[in-house]
Amino acid sequence: MVCGYADLMGGSITIAFDVMGSDHGPMEVVRGAAHLSLEAPHIHALLVGRRGAIDEALAQVRHNGERISVHHAPDFVEMGEKPMEGLSAKPMSSIAVAARLVAEGEADALVAPGNTGAAILAAAQSFKLIPGVRRAALAAVYPTRARHGTKLDPFSLILDVGATLEATPEDLVTFAVMGSTYARIISRNPKPSVALLSNGTEPNKGPANVVEAHRRLNGMKELQFIGNVEGVGIPLGSADVVVCDGFVGNVCLKMLEGVHETVVELARYAYRSKLTWRVGLAMLSSGIRQVQAVTDWQQYGGAPVLGFDRVLIKAHGRSRARAIANAGKVAAKAVAADLPRAIAEGLRS
Amino acid sequence: MVCGYADLMGGSITIAFDVMGSDHGPMEVVRGAAHLSLEAPHIHALLVGRRGAIDEALAQVRHNGERISVHHAPDFVEMGEKPMEGLSAKPMSSIAVAARLVAEGEADALVAPGNTGAAILAAAQSFKLIPGVRRAALAAVYPTRARHGTKLDPFSLILDVGATLEATPEDLVTFAVMGSTYARIISRNPKPSVALLSNGTEPNKGPANVVEAHRRLNGMKELQFIGNVEGVGIPLGSADVVVCDGFVGNVCLKMLEGVHETVVELARYAYRSKLTWRVGLAMLSSGIRQVQAVTDWQQYGGAPVLGFDRVLIKAHGRSRARAIANAGKVAAKAVAADLPRAIAEGLRS
Repeated sequence: MVCGYADLMGGSITIAFDVMGSDHGPMEVVRGAAHLSLEAPHIHALLVGRRGAIDEALAQVRHNGERISVHHAPDFVEMGEKPMEGLSAKPMSSIAVAARLVAEGEADALVAPGNTGAAILAAAQSFKLIPGVRRAALAAVYPTRARHGTKLDPFSLILDVGATLEATPEDLVTFAVMGSTYARIISRNPKPSVALLSNGTEPNKGPANVVEAHRRLNGMKELQFIGNVEGVGIPLGSADVVVCDGFVGNVCLKMLEGVHETVVELARYAYRSKLTWRVGLAMLSSGIRQVQAVTDWQQYGGAPVLGFDRVLIKAHGRSRARAIANAGKVAAKAVAADLPRAIAEGLRS
Repeated sequence: MVCGYADLMGGSITIAFDVMGSDHGPMEVVRGAAHLSLEAPHIHALLVGRRGAIDEALAQVRHNGERISVHHAPDFVEMGEKPMEGLSAKPMSSIAVAARLVAEGEADALVAPGNTGAAILAAAQSFKLIPGVRRAALAAVYPTRARHGTKLDPFSLILDVGATLEATPEDLVTFAVMGSTYARIISRNPKPSVALLSNGTEPNKGPANVVEAHRRLNGMKELQFIGNVEGVGIPLGSADVVVCDGFVGNVCLKMLEGVHETVVELARYAYRSKLTWRVGLAMLSSGIRQVQAVTDWQQYGGAPVLGFDRVLIKAHGRSRARAIANAGKVAAKAVAADLPRAIAEGLRS
């Protein structure tokens, strides 16, 4: 495990937060770190961004100053900016500086709520890929109908959701190992079931890369490979880990978001339009919340970027303080269990 | 336009129905045709399958015998059978016989509620591809939040959803033209908006085939091409026609089915478990129906197979009589407007 500020802090885990570039500006990220400083004594937050903005935000929120440090970065890559261009033009952007601090051991992990492409690219520039990994994957946790693991979590993991648009059979196998390792460590699910997303459950269904990945995964006894799942299995939660290329995964994840928006919109409409509907909605509120939970992947916004030798959690750009704090806790858990080493071991076996 | 029985029937349109192989057996298909014989004087139904089973079903249901004929086919391809093997082993299967009857002009169009792969393969064996079409596409109508066309239909069309797993840029362009033509003719939408499904709205987003298709579609002024949509745009109905390869389309369509099952299941659970929930549900019932309509693509189960010189409507295997009758009406509408010729013209321009 890498140590840096962590050593100074007496064994705590240091998480670097890219404070800039999220949808809500620095305040929500700083508030998230402030929460952590009060409730998570094992975590030290290293806030990376414009010192003036960070200090101003910190002054407004209760926090434990001993568990928060600030590292100044004058620039940042904006949400709509092209990742490659943004990073080239701004070598001192907060995401680039934060990734370098983690690579140099000044922090143990990185939480990034800003531009997704820039976060992955900054990681690719500063971190190393784990031996055996050709391409990193962005994995998303999303809520399902079925419950998973010993904690009966109503979540599954889907990867890749956008880092690697076209995946080789080797990539898909790597994603399966990485996703399974993450679910085992973070969701405390000792034997996560892993499935390939395809257009049919038979082993010969799907494009050539999926069929070949199926054949290889079948031979890997250390994985709980349950074969193919179809699209219907995604919201149902038929597998703990769903493996696909980044193009398909991205479309699926955003579709869940669209369905959620539709459900929320209809609920709002029902609330506004009729008294009987409003009463009905109140009576049904816990049922509605269940539907929303199943469709709202965003509330659990922390998406791990898997495949690098350092831990990177991509928080959703719309994350509020609570989601940021949760992302910090997940990052600390991944560091404590040495996720990158566990993935490397999984790939060797 | 092809004529056959139609000539004998004084200008009516003859639709061949593959009566066998659907989930509910011959009865529902026969009942659907019986409805049509009573309410749609312009349609003649040619029922293809085991004469004994069909006659038995007809005897149980009110119908107009002048608008129904029967063509005996001794075999059928079952739902779970492999299409290629099933068709090779059973040259006299109902789907193969029905496709040949349409190709020979004995009927004007084919409605097939059985094995999807077998229906497309039987069409490929008996029909011709329209000049300029390399691969046929299966298109699905699904309900959306937005409303479309002059009739303000709450439906969009997505294609391909499983006929062509890996699509070239040419295929995607062909799908765009075919889908647009179908929406124009069947949904009475004079200028349907057409979008490519991708992982971002920018023209350079997506795998190479999507980026190249985007470039070509941009140059086609006769199409209302609105660029890329992301997954979120599918349930929202951001475009009248969504174009993608068959693998992605199949996963998306089945995901909508999974979300629907989840919503229905939660509603059932709410209904069973608490009196306040039950009352709330009753009060909200029209709101719930709206959510269900948005997620239940099955109730509008007729999926056109586009690209052949003959009209083929794939009805869902779970179709009840009403859905079968609707599929027959859609097929007749496509024949009356000469959909294959309209597609050929669209591809030439």
